[in-house]
Amino acid sequence: MAGYVPGEQPQAGKFIKLNTNENPYSPSPAVSRAIDDAVKAGLVRYPDPVANSFRTRAAEVLGVEPDWILCGNGSDDILTIVTRAFVGQGQKLRLPYPSYILYKTLAQIQGAIAEEIPFQSDWSLGQPFSNGSADLRLGFLPNPNSPSGTIISPDDVLALADQLPCPLLVDEAYVDFADYSCIELVAENEKIIVSRSMSKSYGLAGLRFGFLVAQPQMIEQLQKVKDSYNCDSIAIAGATAAINDQTWLAENRQRIFDTRKRLTDGMRDLGFDVAPSQANFVWCTHTSRPVQPIYEQLKAQRILVRYMNYPDWGDGLRISVGTDEQTDAFFAVLTTLLSKKDVDVKNSQDRAKDGRN
Amino acid sequence: MAGYVPGEQPQAGKFIKLNTNENPYSPSPAVSRAIDDAVKAGLVRYPDPVANSFRTRAAEVLGVEPDWILCGNGSDDILTIVTRAFVGQGQKLRLPYPSYILYKTLAQIQGAIAEEIPFQSDWSLGQPFSNGSADLRLGFLPNPNSPSGTIISPDDVLALADQLPCPLLVDEAYVDFADYSCIELVAENEKIIVSRSMSKSYGLAGLRFGFLVAQPQMIEQLQKVKDSYNCDSIAIAGATAAINDQTWLAENRQRIFDTRKRLTDGMRDLGFDVAPSQANFVWCTHTSRPVQPIYEQLKAQRILVRYMNYPDWGDGLRISVGTDEQTDAFFAVLTTLLSKKDVDVKNSQDRAKDGRN
Repeated sequence: MAGYVPGEQPQAGKFIKLNTNENPYSPSPAVSRAIDDAVKAGLVRYPDPVANSFRTRAAEVLGVEPDWILCGNGSDDILTIVTRAFVGQGQKLRLPYPSYILYKTLAQIQGAIAEEIPFQSDWSLGQPFSNGSADLRLGFLPNPNSPSGTIISPDDVLALADQLPCPLLVDEAYVDFADYSCIELVAENEKIIVSRSMSKSYGLAGLRFGFLVAQPQMIEQLQKVKDSYNCDSIAIAGATAAINDQTWLAENRQRIFDTRKRLTDGMRDLGFDVAPSQANFVWCTHTSRPVQPIYEQLKAQRILVRYMNYPDWGDGLRISVGTDEQTDAFFAVLTTLLSKKDVDVKNSQDRAKDGRN
Repeated sequence: MAGYVPGEQPQAGKFIKLNTNENPYSPSPAVSRAIDDAVKAGLVRYPDPVANSFRTRAAEVLGVEPDWILCGNGSDDILTIVTRAFVGQGQKLRLPYPSYILYKTLAQIQGAIAEEIPFQSDWSLGQPFSNGSADLRLGFLPNPNSPSGTIISPDDVLALADQLPCPLLVDEAYVDFADYSCIELVAENEKIIVSRSMSKSYGLAGLRFGFLVAQPQMIEQLQKVKDSYNCDSIAIAGATAAINDQTWLAENRQRIFDTRKRLTDGMRDLGFDVAPSQANFVWCTHTSRPVQPIYEQLKAQRILVRYMNYPDWGDGLRISVGTDEQTDAFFAVLTTLLSKKDVDVKNSQDRAKDGRN
């Protein structure tokens, strides 16, 4: 198997990075204070295996009980735990297409079968996603989805879950940039698991912290599968401080919303089709010109966006919402590129892959 | 399945913790400076997926090339990655008995069969450990072993690996407290993988960082199985600073050695059998009195040691090497306990389990 290939993370040089959906703004200042305190408290002891300090605070914010929360080393760890818990070799894991390619990689690592159900043209999911199927053990539903940034309403998600014969993980990595969440559905259907990430909306991609919300009997089973000490003391302290600062989150959201609107409108003005985004990125396709050369020429000018090409679906550019200054610089370069007679079509060796980042 | 149960980690109250093999001394002061710098550099970006800064520095220290190193979120993550990479459902994972119980848990999570080979009475492993067997896919060899603290010589390990039909992971979590390591064997036999932990000898249990050393073609395969960003920016920075400070390590080792000798001699003086330890703990059994009540009464006096009971093998106390002050306090309480006419034998509900911690 090929393994999952994450987005480019240049470790040197100055790029405008609009390719991996990180937050363009620094996290809450409370995070660095909390980390400082955690370091002073010492690192010689093992961390709390279940991160109770985080669970207590997150439970208050989310309106659930602490024992409805399981913490992970990034939401990738959460997805891994859930896959290992439910899907055996030769069994099936269902996911929409196109979506986060890691889901398929996780199925492959597990020796399981990834059953991809194509989105409808309006980015909804029809009956095929909720149909029963032999050996179907788990469904993954990214909501908002990547690369499209589109969302399925809680009513529709509940209807899917009610019909599915297996647990449904609703991956809400981007939900803080959306108008609604499915977290309240967890109480309504014990098969629904909601996962969250601190990487995007809380600006903590470097800290690795994610969590899921599920009914306590589910949490108890999943805990057996995770590494005992999957979250370190510093990540627990930082994530707790971050989720405690909801004022910071609200301000950050608003800034992202404002810039997302600029980015969406600007791309449409330049002739791109842009899916209505409920995330911190926009998915741009073009009916009359190839987009891969645009990605390449932007990269040559040290602006990274994500080029994605889905077999039997099509390709496009997934552009993260940056600061207004980054967006200005991006549009300045893009406008110049597009005004040239034609953008060179190069045969790239890069086979860009989809991904959350 | 039951899931792995780690050692007690009381989150409140003051205990003398001699139960989970943490280092009694604070890590190198370079660690907190490096963490501070990493926080200042920012947490909004994803970390380096392969932790090159750590690999570069560790390679120099260990005398290998950077591409011989794979980093993990603690060495539990390393063990999980290797298990998932090599062992499929219904296949076999071989391990000595008694040893680190997590190995068996990992096999169970994978739907695999844990094939336990008993140690000889002198804690060596005979021919049965290296015999071929249908569907045998991986061997785990903790060296030094837990709970015994004993070690198998590199010559004997190489002989085992040469005969085994599958990869052999030599788990060197405690090797910095031993007289020799198997790291040089990796170049001699491509089936040998050596794993290391920063939790014990570098005093960083709270940071979660481990790594393995293997030949590059093996690393390449294992990288496909790990979570893309399994190590966070702060852990990478802290672990790099720690491994860079070999002076700190040498001083720390020496202190542990000195106290381990005191602990070993003292326990023998009190009538215990103590295995010759090459780790930062000692394994104590007693031929004429039950040890579980001793564990319980020590705990009642806020001193935690690890009581372990292995079916068909026997039980004992695994006592971590603490500071000299902790060791004084431990002996003071223990001596008083033992001088009582008899220690009460209580039927404990706790079924203490083995474990690294």
